[in-house]
Amino acid sequence: MSDSSRETLMPETVLLDHGAGGRLAHDLTTKLVLPIFDNAMLADLNDGAILNLQGVRLAFSTDSFTVDPIFFPGGNIGELAVNGTVNDIAMCGGTPLYLSAGLIIEEGLAMDELERILKAMGTAAQRSGVKIVTGDTKVMPRGVTDRILINTSGIGVIPEDIDVGCTKARPGDRIILSGTIADHGIAILAQREGLSLETTVTSDTAPLNQLVNQMFETSKKIHVLRDPTRGGVGTALNEIAEKSSVGIKISEERIPLRDDVAGVCELLGLDPLYLANEGKLLAFVAREDSEDVLVAMQQEPLGQAACIIGEVVSEHPERVVMETRTGGNRIVDMLTGEQFPRIC
Amino acid sequence: MSDSSRETLMPETVLLDHGAGGRLAHDLTTKLVLPIFDNAMLADLNDGAILNLQGVRLAFSTDSFTVDPIFFPGGNIGELAVNGTVNDIAMCGGTPLYLSAGLIIEEGLAMDELERILKAMGTAAQRSGVKIVTGDTKVMPRGVTDRILINTSGIGVIPEDIDVGCTKARPGDRIILSGTIADHGIAILAQREGLSLETTVTSDTAPLNQLVNQMFETSKKIHVLRDPTRGGVGTALNEIAEKSSVGIKISEERIPLRDDVAGVCELLGLDPLYLANEGKLLAFVAREDSEDVLVAMQQEPLGQAACIIGEVVSEHPERVVMETRTGGNRIVDMLTGEQFPRIC
Repeated sequence: MSDSSRETLMPETVLLDHGAGGRLAHDLTTKLVLPIFDNAMLADLNDGAILNLQGVRLAFSTDSFTVDPIFFPGGNIGELAVNGTVNDIAMCGGTPLYLSAGLIIEEGLAMDELERILKAMGTAAQRSGVKIVTGDTKVMPRGVTDRILINTSGIGVIPEDIDVGCTKARPGDRIILSGTIADHGIAILAQREGLSLETTVTSDTAPLNQLVNQMFETSKKIHVLRDPTRGGVGTALNEIAEKSSVGIKISEERIPLRDDVAGVCELLGLDPLYLANEGKLLAFVAREDSEDVLVAMQQEPLGQAACIIGEVVSEHPERVVMETRTGGNRIVDMLTGEQFPRIC
Repeated sequence: MSDSSRETLMPETVLLDHGAGGRLAHDLTTKLVLPIFDNAMLADLNDGAILNLQGVRLAFSTDSFTVDPIFFPGGNIGELAVNGTVNDIAMCGGTPLYLSAGLIIEEGLAMDELERILKAMGTAAQRSGVKIVTGDTKVMPRGVTDRILINTSGIGVIPEDIDVGCTKARPGDRIILSGTIADHGIAILAQREGLSLETTVTSDTAPLNQLVNQMFETSKKIHVLRDPTRGGVGTALNEIAEKSSVGIKISEERIPLRDDVAGVCELLGLDPLYLANEGKLLAFVAREDSEDVLVAMQQEPLGQAACIIGEVVSEHPERVVMETRTGGNRIVDMLTGEQFPRIC
């Protein structure tokens, strides 16, 4: 990429929105990172890379967690970091096995807090059946970073008969959402802003690998899996529509939303479609198997509220269109950035 | 671990030295982390974990880079992050293949600087023959972190007939050092403190996998490989002596040290034995093969100044003893912390 092409397309400095789940982040990746790290595995832009190592198909993924506050209703940064990477591996169709943990700690963090975070990581690892096998700890001088940042990377094995990826959505696929949206985003926001709500919204952070196992037990015709974290369901659907060159139709009234979450969103003018989830998935399933997969999901603790929210169409390729509650149609665009930073 | 046992052994808050390569970091790992993430692969405390995945032996490693300044003589944080993880894989006896990159960027970093860093990562990856296949970018608000932090994790395959690890040093082994020490530490320090030296000391950041390949071509009786980064040669030797329950004898006059590096160390009262290296390795080789391995190393660009600096003994187990230039003996202890933070 020549300097001149970059100058016309990209701002002169990195903006907060370059780290969010929206259009600017997508631009940074496709216009700056991909041309430099030129390779097909990265270019797929799945939640992780799918590698073939001496005949073994591996999923390999990484994620850094910068959530503020580090303790929030429903969890802390530790379990978020483990569940996040477990889920990225599961979204590649992989069985998560091994995790690394890179801690960047601010000098002065209470040892008790560090212990709580590490214990949450240990418990989350046990719950999802992964082992944390390698790690690294750096400490930054006071004021140079904020409390603690955690990177986790993970490895999983992908069974031979599983083949998912965000380029594989096909017209006719039904789109299943595993439960309510925006819980994590609102839990973090309410805690950070000190909102006093009647009920406490808790983060949905959870490992999705067991749910995914049950889904594949039922059908191998699952084409795409995606956990809609940063950027939410709206951004995830746009990325899939774009990478698969298909249109997506969803129905607003079918998207599960807690009343209290809906209330906060309305109060603050936030669109739940773009808020982060940390224990939900979107599955694109061949029409003929979609009801069976849905029923299998509903029998799992993390899929009880699963429902079909829409379908893939050959019309309006690369566009996501939502039928609103009032019966109109609205284009669900990719946001430029995110509604607020440091959500995960 | 009970709260009471922790309270008697550990400070109440995380200190800078918990992130350094010395005793406090070791304590944090062994007393807090290991009991929580209880598993044998982590407990080995090698540079990476050695895993068996459906018959394929994998090395898996992670490292976060927080170096300050991010540009320094001889390189920048980008190539440091790639070379660092390539080297960790190579130190497990693995052929490095795939890397992940997790960027945590401070809002406001110049896009040009980011591009230089990414290009350095791309070039370093190409040089060592690895692919960066998955990544993640987070942006932190201004003032919440410092410019850019990079985590890299890596995967490599370990050939069947290679078996290295820091528990495997045996009395009689010769200890080979691949070149001069403390170059990286002094390069960073001089740049950070604005020292004006007659010559510019440049970082030795480099990928060691090609050098390691040539060593294994020559002999399979290499028992331990370690790149003495944070904490330097002194800390690395102490860790190996402890994990292998052996004594180590080294000779001060055999340790290669550039004159200008020695000069800065003397001026500032720093001990080069504890300063970071980013392109050097220590190898523990069976006595009968050590000369052959040494000659093979000296024919490689990164091993030209390699030499035998000492040997493993059955006396004084877990202790490193150095014969000084004046003919005396000095115990090389593990430092509590490091001489200065944010070196890599």
